[in-house]
Amino acid sequence: MQSVEVDAENIIRIITPALDQSRHKGQAGKIAVIGGCREYTGAPYFAAISALKIGADLSHVFCTKDAAPVIKSYSPELIVHPVLEESYSVREEDKKIIASKVLGEVDKWLERFDCLVVGPGLGRDPFLLDCVSEIIRHARKSNIPIVIDGDGLFLVTNHLELVSGYALAVLTPNVNEYKRLVQKVLSSEVNNDDATQQVLSLAKQIGGVTILRKGKSDLISDGDTVKSVSIYGSPRRCGGQGDILSGSVAVFLSWARQHIEAADLDSNPAVIGSIAGSAMMRKAASLAFSNKKRSTVTGDIIECLGKSLEDICPAGSCSL
Amino acid sequence: MQSVEVDAENIIRIITPALDQSRHKGQAGKIAVIGGCREYTGAPYFAAISALKIGADLSHVFCTKDAAPVIKSYSPELIVHPVLEESYSVREEDKKIIASKVLGEVDKWLERFDCLVVGPGLGRDPFLLDCVSEIIRHARKSNIPIVIDGDGLFLVTNHLELVSGYALAVLTPNVNEYKRLVQKVLSSEVNNDDATQQVLSLAKQIGGVTILRKGKSDLISDGDTVKSVSIYGSPRRCGGQGDILSGSVAVFLSWARQHIEAADLDSNPAVIGSIAGSAMMRKAASLAFSNKKRSTVTGDIIECLGKSLEDICPAGSCSL
Repeated sequence: MQSVEVDAENIIRIITPALDQSRHKGQAGKIAVIGGCREYTGAPYFAAISALKIGADLSHVFCTKDAAPVIKSYSPELIVHPVLEESYSVREEDKKIIASKVLGEVDKWLERFDCLVVGPGLGRDPFLLDCVSEIIRHARKSNIPIVIDGDGLFLVTNHLELVSGYALAVLTPNVNEYKRLVQKVLSSEVNNDDATQQVLSLAKQIGGVTILRKGKSDLISDGDTVKSVSIYGSPRRCGGQGDILSGSVAVFLSWARQHIEAADLDSNPAVIGSIAGSAMMRKAASLAFSNKKRSTVTGDIIECLGKSLEDICPAGSCSL
Repeated sequence: MQSVEVDAENIIRIITPALDQSRHKGQAGKIAVIGGCREYTGAPYFAAISALKIGADLSHVFCTKDAAPVIKSYSPELIVHPVLEESYSVREEDKKIIASKVLGEVDKWLERFDCLVVGPGLGRDPFLLDCVSEIIRHARKSNIPIVIDGDGLFLVTNHLELVSGYALAVLTPNVNEYKRLVQKVLSSEVNNDDATQQVLSLAKQIGGVTILRKGKSDLISDGDTVKSVSIYGSPRRCGGQGDILSGSVAVFLSWARQHIEAADLDSNPAVIGSIAGSAMMRKAASLAFSNKKRSTVTGDIIECLGKSLEDICPAGSCSL
């Protein structure tokens, strides 16, 4: 079975909203990243700032109390909520009340978001992951799209019911995360000879969630169809690139959803958003690599998001 | 006795891995710096970020709880683990249990690293140094190369058994650190008339560790041979340059080891990595000085690492 290489640049042009003086704050997207703990702070920052640099209007981070001051210090552009808790700071007898407090804090905001990114720098603390499971359930009830990466994938691989059958979920596994997902869901090993068929089966088996399998070519399937994005890219494999991708998919998914609703189309915004996000990330990585070569780090790629989007879809032509 | 000036640029070209779209995260090197305490935070940052800028995929720092938020805030590119403890925060009766907890936290990660850098900004707290001694023992058991600088040299000079006979250890002493090492190991004073013979004797006496003696020319010996690197350099002596060197040696040592294993060669990766790391640092310092003159600081040199490597070994020729 062959995947179909798509014209991702054209998709980006179609779904990117026109800029217009009459629009107001928030209409170009409000994204929230659920991630950031005592150990990890870079990943949620990368995801959240990437969303802004692509053109979202607001980008929030929900993280633990320890992580918040550090993430805030990376950039004043982000709104950082220090609301998550890890086991070490919670007594056993307080867990129930603390969990409901965490949920309450997130719920206050949840309905406003156009997309969540769950997982960058989340860590694997059991109490924290329990709270995040509940956040996923609430988001799903409100039909908010969710992009799941990193430790979020660790969580849903072990609790497939969290996303199973939810068409607005995108999973973005790398080599190792994909392997665990295939083992868990298909009870088999990764098959690179028929990668297309396998990613299709995987997406179908999880009830039509969208899988974005990262690799030399990115493969994207919702169980109905498989698309590939092979353009551009960089041979640097510095940590953090997956975080840019998750933030990028979140923005394009919410734009795709707006576009599909407005134009009354019959397309899957999760697939469209994944294609656009993948192409955006690859183009920016390619541009950064052409400047910085081996020295390229994730921040360099983020700095190239704007120019990459402008090359594909010039804002200059928008009505002012 | 004369040392042999080596063609360090050629060595860099030989060991630097080709970039390739099919590679995945981690294959170009995973480095960890053990350092950073209440007093010092710049040094471990310089070492860790230098590793990334030369081309490692992942760079971690293991430091004390006080140092972590600061080091994290310097850059979201690093993964910073707040796991070390200093005496002031540990009660006498808890020391044993805290030490084993610290070790446990580091052990979770240890096997994944291609090289450790022990010492930048470590400080000299006795309890912390006891824990770091144990980390060195564990790393050695797992055959993980270790570059030792700064306060790490203070530690091993007083506990030579930690590194004695370990061929994958590199010590990078400056003038004062070298003096103490010579006094302790050879029970003599530094002899600049026959520096080559003395560094050879020193390396041999510590059982074949590699010594990188920093100076006008860097002298490198594993007790078998003595090489010198004299190219480039900068007359600026701002603090922090030794930290760049230690991070640089760590990356090249792990690349040299990969190359030597793949090509089935009979070379010492610790010597090869030291030569390459020394040349890399000198070239970047020279370039930074030509731009910034007396105003050159360590961060300026780090910004020149990428271009310096690109001049020697263009990434453009890699297969895309």
